[in-house]
Amino acid sequence: MLINGEAWRTIWREPDGAVGVIDQRALPHYLETRRLCSCAEVEVAIRDMWVRGAPLIGAAAAYGLALAMREEASDAALDEACARLLATRPTAVNLRWALDRLSRQLRPAPAADRRQMAYLLAAELCNEDVAINQSLGHHGLALIKAAAARHPGRRLNILTHCNAGWLATVDWGTATSAIYQAFDAGIELHVWVDETRPRNQGASLTAWELGRHGVPHSLIVDNAGGHLMQHGQVDLCIVGADRVTAHGDVCNKIGTYLKALAAHDNDVPFYVAMPSPTLDLTVSDGLREITIENRSADEIAMVSGIAADGRLETVRIAPHGSSCSTNPGFDVTPARLVTGLITERGVCAANPAAIAAMFGTPEKHR
Amino acid sequence: MLINGEAWRTIWREPDGAVGVIDQRALPHYLETRRLCSCAEVEVAIRDMWVRGAPLIGAAAAYGLALAMREEASDAALDEACARLLATRPTAVNLRWALDRLSRQLRPAPAADRRQMAYLLAAELCNEDVAINQSLGHHGLALIKAAAARHPGRRLNILTHCNAGWLATVDWGTATSAIYQAFDAGIELHVWVDETRPRNQGASLTAWELGRHGVPHSLIVDNAGGHLMQHGQVDLCIVGADRVTAHGDVCNKIGTYLKALAAHDNDVPFYVAMPSPTLDLTVSDGLREITIENRSADEIAMVSGIAADGRLETVRIAPHGSSCSTNPGFDVTPARLVTGLITERGVCAANPAAIAAMFGTPEKHR
Repeated sequence: MLINGEAWRTIWREPDGAVGVIDQRALPHYLETRRLCSCAEVEVAIRDMWVRGAPLIGAAAAYGLALAMREEASDAALDEACARLLATRPTAVNLRWALDRLSRQLRPAPAADRRQMAYLLAAELCNEDVAINQSLGHHGLALIKAAAARHPGRRLNILTHCNAGWLATVDWGTATSAIYQAFDAGIELHVWVDETRPRNQGASLTAWELGRHGVPHSLIVDNAGGHLMQHGQVDLCIVGADRVTAHGDVCNKIGTYLKALAAHDNDVPFYVAMPSPTLDLTVSDGLREITIENRSADEIAMVSGIAADGRLETVRIAPHGSSCSTNPGFDVTPARLVTGLITERGVCAANPAAIAAMFGTPEKHR
Repeated sequence: MLINGEAWRTIWREPDGAVGVIDQRALPHYLETRRLCSCAEVEVAIRDMWVRGAPLIGAAAAYGLALAMREEASDAALDEACARLLATRPTAVNLRWALDRLSRQLRPAPAADRRQMAYLLAAELCNEDVAINQSLGHHGLALIKAAAARHPGRRLNILTHCNAGWLATVDWGTATSAIYQAFDAGIELHVWVDETRPRNQGASLTAWELGRHGVPHSLIVDNAGGHLMQHGQVDLCIVGADRVTAHGDVCNKIGTYLKALAAHDNDVPFYVAMPSPTLDLTVSDGLREITIENRSADEIAMVSGIAADGRLETVRIAPHGSSCSTNPGFDVTPARLVTGLITERGVCAANPAAIAAMFGTPEKHR
């Protein structure tokens, strides 16, 4: 999307074969890019979260393999690079998916061809991500247009949680794709951005990227969304998903469930943007079957930002002696609270029959 | 309550007639006390939030009048002190209530008696606050005992939001009173403390005061409570209230409504600690009738904490150019989501008939 009028992606090939990325650790305070010149540098970029977001991690891993093949293109080098990249974020599904796909395609090829081929496959994977998100956004745009038609003569208010934006993907984002397309189409809209404690991705990523593209938005605390819905100030919720089950349960960033409850209580449509790789047909009951990662206590106890003198600074907000050890990264929103799943194939009701009709049954999928 | 084994109140008279307070701006990082030696110093302490919380503000204002009478005890001085103290936090109901009460009692007295009388009245007002909270906590204790009996052999998990703790009152707190009494009675319990963005009173006040008294607790982000309830990790919610209507709607710190929704969705009892001065029988429908204060954008954009070198530091977390101007301080939880009101007269159902039976009808009250 645009950063102050200029079109960007989150990851790109530089003319000399290095891989460029936006260093997301410095956002929203500084826009810094990094050149990754080796597979080892890509590992650091993924592990230390210069890049994050499932689709972008997959894309970065694909380019990591390309850089590895530039150094040495043997079978052993391919295996080693896959293993090392996979270890950077062990629970990221897209990471394994991207590595499996590229290594399956590269292995039959002669070593001499692998370098050029890996770059092409990585670029192809990136372009596919962009195409999926663009298509998903196209279907979401129809929902936004319909909602705008129900409220003529005033701006449409959309609430989102965390960052399911273009910074989490190669471009467009998932939840944000329809928003960008609606904004570009001239629909008058405004986005409520949950700050999304503990990591504040709403503040540091979503608010930043919407602002740079020119989309009107307000940053709000996670506590405020329910009150806004009670007072008719939210017309539509669109969030992303880390995993959607065959029954339509949605595992997403912690706090999503609370917003879905408030939307349900106030008759506000609650949509989940779900590119098909996010669908996990091996799981049915999200609440009982999905294990939620518990993350570091420091995410609760410490907050990072920019001091008055421009330095990035981390401050402690928790009292010494108070436990901060319960920090679930995600929660599960039951399908009954989800109005629909926005996918690249169309909008799908969040129930087993509709999901099976659009994506096949679990048996077929396996 | 206790601070590391020593009994404290939030406000006290010093031997020389000065008024001592805990300077709550330095919490949870430093415990600092201040001596207030004039009415003007009390005004600063209230305006700049060295002391906060409706009951404590009332108590501080009462002592502010005593300090004013020490300087000059004429009718004109009494009127002027009342006006100046009232202007410090214009929307605080307890402030007006405390000032009205003391000035009504002081005015008939000879000027020569007013100084000593004002100190006695301020002390009486403080002791009444303590007695109300203790009694309220006694009724809440019965609820906690009953809940503990339903879950024998394991700790009881109680969730609270914001600070309805002893730091907001003279002692005991409202929501925390039953918790302290249960802990002191040896009931095995653990408190989930919502951090309560944007001002983080959960982290800076509630977690601190529970920790100093020795009550087991964990600080969690506001987003986490729903997930914990879904997984049976919350047995009981107890929150405070800024105002409760004749119908039982509860106006409390922003985000309370979201927790009440989650409690309702997971059959977790949701109680509101309500000392009777918090009941406003002139209001029925909280959602339609209560105007919610919109607070400063800086509360969202900036976070304060302690840097690695021990300095108090404020950092900006919002991107420049993102609006943070929607910052509602409170929300309204509809009575249908409230299991009961814990008051100093007993536990009362959150409906017009039960409230009228316990506290009289709006007509009687006026």
